[in-house]
Amino acid sequence: MSDASWINDVQFDDSGLIPAIAQDAGTGVILMVAWMNAESLAETATTKRAVYWSRSRKRLWRKGEESGHQQIVHEIRLDCDGDVILLKVEQKGGIACHTGRESCFFRRLDGDSEAASWTITDPVLKDPELIYK
Amino acid sequence: MSDASWINDVQFDDSGLIPAIAQDAGTGVILMVAWMNAESLAETATTKRAVYWSRSRKRLWRKGEESGHQQIVHEIRLDCDGDVILLKVEQKGGIACHTGRESCFFRRLDGDSEAASWTITDPVLKDPELIYK
Repeated sequence: MSDASWINDVQFDDSGLIPAIAQDAGTGVILMVAWMNAESLAETATTKRAVYWSRSRKRLWRKGEESGHQQIVHEIRLDCDGDVILLKVEQKGGIACHTGRESCFFRRLDGDSEAASWTITDPVLKDPELIYK
Repeated sequence: MSDASWINDVQFDDSGLIPAIAQDAGTGVILMVAWMNAESLAETATTKRAVYWSRSRKRLWRKGEESGHQQIVHEIRLDCDGDVILLKVEQKGGIACHTGRESCFFRRLDGDSEAASWTITDPVLKDPELIYK
């Protein structure tokens, strides 16, 4: 854990976590949202590689550790309430999502109200079985 | 509440809420993150105006209801896990943040590790006292 003063401005929730948005530093595309604890945020700031906290695996998740799809961190931003982190990153391999897509936000709501449905708009760039081999 | 089938694909948390990112549809700037419940999401889809759930006031928050800074919704997206919403919006007045700035993410971490600190990078475009008069 870091005792750096900047981390005291970060408002972690009751579980000690904060959501972090990863945005492509070049294109502005929102790639994904994951969670960080203080340790993962401190390591991200030091190494300039995105490190999250995996809620399912309950351990640090160094993005790309299995897939090779690391995120090189250009900027770390904090919102006005101090309870959301924004990372501007260079996405290695051009794929952030575990489905093999650039972005996790690949579904768009189309149609009106009750009759609307989610349309998959983004292509799979690489078969996940080849990513996580 | 809506019983539209598309909303069943949305994973609300134990409090019935989901985080929603508002991104400027033109520039890609991430404006803010707020929370939605099913009712606010359904109303957003119907009216094409961003409606959030205010956790502090415990009521629907029709963005711009006091400030006039409405968000006209161009797209609603959902991430792969179904637990984060992305709105692509036109930000009326060019100000999303209650501090009078375009974006809530106006602080950037500068410097290395322990010695780093948050730098305010974005100007106040309008005095909040004039916004919430």
